[in-house]
Amino acid sequence: MISYSLLKTSGKARRGKITTPHGEIETPVFMPVGTAGTVKSLTSNQIAETGSQIVLANTYHLYLRPGMDVIGKFGGIHHFMHWDKPILTDSGGFQVFSLSGGLTKVTDEGVLFKSHIDGSMHHISPEISMQIQHVLGSDIIMAFDEPIKDDAPYQYAIESSQRTIRWLDRCIKEWHTLDPERKQSLFGIVQGGIYRDLRLESIHKTLDANLEGIAIGGETIGYNKERTKEILDWILDEIPCNLPRYTMGVGDIDDIFEVVARGVDMFDCVSPTRLARNGALLISPAEGGNKKNKYRLGISKAEYAMQDIPIDRTCQCYTCTNYSRGYLCHLFRSHELLANTLASIHNVAMLAQVCEKIRGSIENDTFASLMKEWIG
Amino acid sequence: MISYSLLKTSGKARRGKITTPHGEIETPVFMPVGTAGTVKSLTSNQIAETGSQIVLANTYHLYLRPGMDVIGKFGGIHHFMHWDKPILTDSGGFQVFSLSGGLTKVTDEGVLFKSHIDGSMHHISPEISMQIQHVLGSDIIMAFDEPIKDDAPYQYAIESSQRTIRWLDRCIKEWHTLDPERKQSLFGIVQGGIYRDLRLESIHKTLDANLEGIAIGGETIGYNKERTKEILDWILDEIPCNLPRYTMGVGDIDDIFEVVARGVDMFDCVSPTRLARNGALLISPAEGGNKKNKYRLGISKAEYAMQDIPIDRTCQCYTCTNYSRGYLCHLFRSHELLANTLASIHNVAMLAQVCEKIRGSIENDTFASLMKEWIG
Repeated sequence: MISYSLLKTSGKARRGKITTPHGEIETPVFMPVGTAGTVKSLTSNQIAETGSQIVLANTYHLYLRPGMDVIGKFGGIHHFMHWDKPILTDSGGFQVFSLSGGLTKVTDEGVLFKSHIDGSMHHISPEISMQIQHVLGSDIIMAFDEPIKDDAPYQYAIESSQRTIRWLDRCIKEWHTLDPERKQSLFGIVQGGIYRDLRLESIHKTLDANLEGIAIGGETIGYNKERTKEILDWILDEIPCNLPRYTMGVGDIDDIFEVVARGVDMFDCVSPTRLARNGALLISPAEGGNKKNKYRLGISKAEYAMQDIPIDRTCQCYTCTNYSRGYLCHLFRSHELLANTLASIHNVAMLAQVCEKIRGSIENDTFASLMKEWIG
Repeated sequence: MISYSLLKTSGKARRGKITTPHGEIETPVFMPVGTAGTVKSLTSNQIAETGSQIVLANTYHLYLRPGMDVIGKFGGIHHFMHWDKPILTDSGGFQVFSLSGGLTKVTDEGVLFKSHIDGSMHHISPEISMQIQHVLGSDIIMAFDEPIKDDAPYQYAIESSQRTIRWLDRCIKEWHTLDPERKQSLFGIVQGGIYRDLRLESIHKTLDANLEGIAIGGETIGYNKERTKEILDWILDEIPCNLPRYTMGVGDIDDIFEVVARGVDMFDCVSPTRLARNGALLISPAEGGNKKNKYRLGISKAEYAMQDIPIDRTCQCYTCTNYSRGYLCHLFRSHELLANTLASIHNVAMLAQVCEKIRGSIENDTFASLMKEWIG
């Protein structure tokens, strides 16, 4: 069971703390994604050294591979992936829709989908999602939902949003059966697409369930930046201040500031590790990072080959403390595996450091000026 | 300048110490290969944590990419790759012949070869090899040689072996010019293919040059196991005991024992990291490792998926201390990058630990029984 304490606010930005069975999380917090039980290319020590406090693992991926028999044998994902800090799992909903190549059949019972690995057919229902996450043993679990696409027509959005609400009830029943001592905390997920009335209905119904946290989902969030802000403005004021709020799929630096400014506490994204593998390294305003260049530097470019300075001179990560832009440039141009590791360490650490700065600024009530410094 | 001290013998096996400008090396020592200035998939910290005392870097690869202008700007390979322990560089000879796809033209002047990266033509001579290694700034440099193939006819072996001897003179002259204070130590390389008289002529001429170490090269070494032993038996007794002896390309566990038993002090091979990337993990006799299975376990096999034990329960590496066979099996089956890192840590650490055991056994004069335990 987790508990959330709100420690301080600066505008709507919230400085808080989440206590979990695997330790405390200072919020606002960015959560790197360990899709298949591994934050890609990083050892557990390296993840911890980036300053990351919690990782997200994907129910869909772990269910398909290695499968629940293996995870069960290992007593859960913490031991399996050697990570003794908090873990959050998603419900599988998002991947079922995004990775199935359109071959997904949704009924009220659940979702029939095709594995992206071997094409085999599988069925996940609210109950099955709870069962899988129970075996995974994560500290925070997510209700099974149907994320709605931005272009979903209103009529479909109504049906789907109401189905997600009905599924929440079934999730809660199953969770109570599986976990009578509430060792895992269940978050509901607000859906409703791009429609204000549906988002409001969804948040109210989700709040009625009296859970320990609220996630805000859907294709829009983190993807359509303007809509994300609009949706958050509609619903965040509805959420009592004692509940942690989590936007799913937010990882761009400007988006992190925007959601924190609206009162969000938690966010995750694959972007820091994915960008890292593509040689896109995050830089702060001190190194010329800004909204226009997405705070990124393309390290493979010839201009970096001779630079004997860190990726970002304000960064305290292992990579920036020990390696130069020139060396990283060489590793990427030579397609060396170490490139992925060093770049991922840096990008994940950068987001951890951004969050640390944000937390400090909320404590000092200078969040607005920090946000101005970073996103202008 | 390096110096070698012979501390103890057990049979012909030698326990020694090499002092270099970047620290001491306890011998016998296995040297992992950092081809392009990176031991594939490992950070410098991880390399050091495997117990590795020295790494080898490849002149050929670094000359082609990132190129000498970059390495020069960084003041050498130590700073560039962030490794402050000893480094040995090869001369480029082996790669010029093995990676050029047969498009190599050898004259007395040097070798014209085609880059394996972009097909461009390059020329390396004894002088150029010395110049490159001088810029690389390695502690131990190798004379430029022509490695002879096992199937080279006798007439060609004579010509080539004598050319390598003439090239050694030119290397020494160039080395004296570039490095008057002898900060780098030059090793000569014994060639002569599979012919006893040529190997003996080569070792005698190489010893005449009065260098600080002797390398034994050629296609045979580490590749044709029986011939390797035969060649070492011909020549090792010719080498004064105050000189370190280095067999190039030896990395199989049984071969390490065989060459150490004959008085070799140093050996390198890409095998531990290459095998690691293929999921072939080294195991000790305690885990069923033996000469027949090449001390390997194929971690992707289904039988390991459920095993909650380390790869090798006698191994002290980071991977074995923290991760299970089941997790490694999952990472390999999921093609996760972390698989390469954790497997490489283990394989490199295993060879470091084998060498540590060997050194202990020479000190206790129990080398023969350790060898029996490991290779039967």
